[in-house]
Formats: sequence, structure tokens, C-alpha cells
Amino acid sequence: MTILKITASARDDRSLSRTLASRFVAEWLARRPDDAVVERDVAGQPPPVVTEEWIAAAFAADQDRTDAQRDLLACSDRLIAELAEADVIVIATPMYNYGMPATLKAWFDQVIRVNETFSFDLSRGDYPLQPVLSGKRLVVLTSTGEFGFMRGGVRSHMNHLLPHIATCASYLGVAEQDIHHVGIEYQEFRDERHERSIADAYRAIPGLVDRLARASPVQLRR
Amino acid sequence: MTILKITASARDDRSLSRTLASRFVAEWLARRPDDAVVERDVAGQPPPVVTEEWIAAAFAADQDRTDAQRDLLACSDRLIAELAEADVIVIATPMYNYGMPATLKAWFDQVIRVNETFSFDLSRGDYPLQPVLSGKRLVVLTSTGEFGFMRGGVRSHMNHLLPHIATCASYLGVAEQDIHHVGIEYQEFRDERHERSIADAYRAIPGLVDRLARASPVQLRR
Repeated sequence: MTILKITASARDDRSLSRTLASRFVAEWLARRPDDAVVERDVAGQPPPVVTEEWIAAAFAADQDRTDAQRDLLACSDRLIAELAEADVIVIATPMYNYGMPATLKAWFDQVIRVNETFSFDLSRGDYPLQPVLSGKRLVVLTSTGEFGFMRGGVRSHMNHLLPHIATCASYLGVAEQDIHHVGIEYQEFRDERHERSIADAYRAIPGLVDRLARASPVQLRR
Repeated sequence: MTILKITASARDDRSLSRTLASRFVAEWLARRPDDAVVERDVAGQPPPVVTEEWIAAAFAADQDRTDAQRDLLACSDRLIAELAEADVIVIATPMYNYGMPATLKAWFDQVIRVNETFSFDLSRGDYPLQPVLSGKRLVVLTSTGEFGFMRGGVRSHMNHLLPHIATCASYLGVAEQDIHHVGIEYQEFRDERHERSIADAYRAIPGLVDRLARASPVQLRR
């Protein structure tokens, strides 16, 4: 299997989400040492933001694209190729201002692309978009400064990170039931609750890896 | 009064959200020709993304900052100064992949800054953050390709644009009841519903401007 490990924290060594991702990959490779891991650090190398020229290039038919348009799409092509190859996508990200870091959003905006990761057909009526990819699993590893962002929590209405990633996930080829989440909370409080949250997250990872690593790769992918 | 007009569409002339913003400003100036309008095009000039060095600079005490750290914060300083001056903030943005364009998120990540737009104090208990600014009004002008994103709509659970902006708005100095929204939907369908949505949005703007332009500027601002 191939794991695509996407990291998005502006922090390097001190990043909790990066540490969770490293732990996940280490546990994975301990079980399946021959699997491939592709690293994509969107903080270290931010994907370009979408421009008017990019949109025109993306919507042009492949055979009509100019060389300049192909150049504009080169990064998107590469990121989509990485995504298409992946059986398991790991997105390790902090919550910044209640949502994704801008660099992670730039990644989504590069990979969710017409005729590549979704098809568009008005004959489908009110739901003209359909994902092209399928059969992938998504692991979202998050770190938040505050707490209570999950269902029933005091800040659940302020969580624009995980629900947003979950909405976009269908265009990554991930069905709703194939999204898994492990998160660390309370980072700003630096208290016992934070320590417990870190310990709980670390404890959750081996079991998650067990479940995912055991499953055979799905053959439905594009 | 001062209006801060933030535009975020990658498209220029063909942008529906930009057209709504232009209409809003024209209606405003027709009523209050002496008011100032500050334009901030985050698509044309994307704010830098947050880096580890930026975070360190933001959290350093002002008197301890190096010249390099001051340089890193220069853009944030400028954007915050624009925000602090504004009585009415207009955010005109398309929905990209169910949320903000990355460039708009980069703007939020530059302006939501400790000791500038929020204070942090653990003695406040579980809610240690408090906004510094207050008394501003926010107008959000959106354009979406699909439809049904508002409360009760078929895609309301997929709206990670307006709810996210609303959550961040408190750090812009905007109370919940001072957020106003006008949106165009159905852009991808290019049908009668889209035409009606455009007409409805245009029709909503004069009344909104009437209400906001009549109100006296709030003196509570920082």
C-alpha cells in the first residue's frame, strides 16, 4: 500500500500534528515495512494559490492547452498524481483560527480539479459533481489550542477544520465511513488536560493502524 | 465612516462577488460621498502564509523583537491597521471547495494576532481569548457554484465559508448580530435560478446599505 502523508503545521519540531503523523507512519511501517510513504509538506512548500489563469487552464480541454497553461497546472498534476497513488491519506494539521492553515486549503484547491478528481455533468440535475477517485482511507490528525470542538463540545459550532476536510474528502476518493480522526486539544492551556489529551491521542494510534493496515487495499481506485 | 473592502476572488472582471462589492460601495458612496473606502485585494496581493518564524515574532514582546521579526510582522501590522480603522468591513468572496479561498484564510491568519486583535489570559479559565476590537459591522458577499448552503438548505452541512467567517468575525471586532450576508448561488448551473439569485442579491443591497449607512459610527473601537 502507499501512504500519502500531508503535513501542514507552520511549526517543525515542536508541531504536535507532525509528531502524531510520524507516530502513525512508524506504527504503520512496523506492521508493513514494505509499504511506500510519500511525504507532502504543504507548510514547507506551499502549493500556489488558484488564479484566474489557473482556472482557465483547468477548464480548458487537455488538447487545447497552451504550454503556459500546462506549466500552470504542473503542481496540480503532481499533487493529484500523489493523491491517486495513495491508499491511505494522512492529513496532519493544526487548527488555525478555527479552520485549515491557508497552505492546506491551497493544497485542496490544487487537487480538487474538474475532469481529474471530479467530473461535472449538468444532466445529473442538482448534483452535477461526482468524485473520480474512490476506495481510499483518510486519517486526519489534528492539534487545537482550545478544546471542545467535537460533537457535543462547547466549541463544536466553531470547528471549521474537521467538518470542512470531511466535506472535501469525497473528492479525494474517501467515503464518509472511511474518515478517521485523532486529535490533541488544550495546547494553549499547557495543563494536565493537555497532557492527557496527548497521551490519549498516542494511545489511539496503534489500534487505528491495526485496523487500517490489516485491510486489503481496495481495487476500486481509478 | 471608513469601509474596508476585502476582495478574494481569483477572477477579476467576471467575478460575481467583486461585482456585488462594487455595487455595495457605489450604493454606500451615493448616500455618504465623503466616507473613505480602503481596498484590500487578497487575491491580487496574497498575504504571506504564517510560518514558524512569524509565530515566534507574533508571540515575542514588542520591545524584544529583532528587526527581522518586525519585518516579518510588517504585513500583519498593515492589515491590522486597516482593520482597526474600519467601521464597516466588506468581505466579498467566492466559495472555493466549500470554504474560503486560501488567500482569504491567509488574511485572517495575518490579522488574528495575539495582543493586537485578541488578548490571551489563562486567568479567564476555559475561555482565555478575548477580542480587542469592537463595534464594527461586517458585510459578507458570497458567490457559490452550487446552492442550498444556507440554513435548511440541502447543502447547509457543507457550508464552511460563512460559518467560518462568522466564527472569526468576533476577532475582527464584529458582534454576531452585526454580520450581514448577501449571496449569489447556482453559478455552475447558469440557469434561470442563477439569474434570479443574481437579481435577488442586487435587490438586497440598497436596503442593507440604507440600514448600515444610517447608523452612526460606533465609538467603542479601540
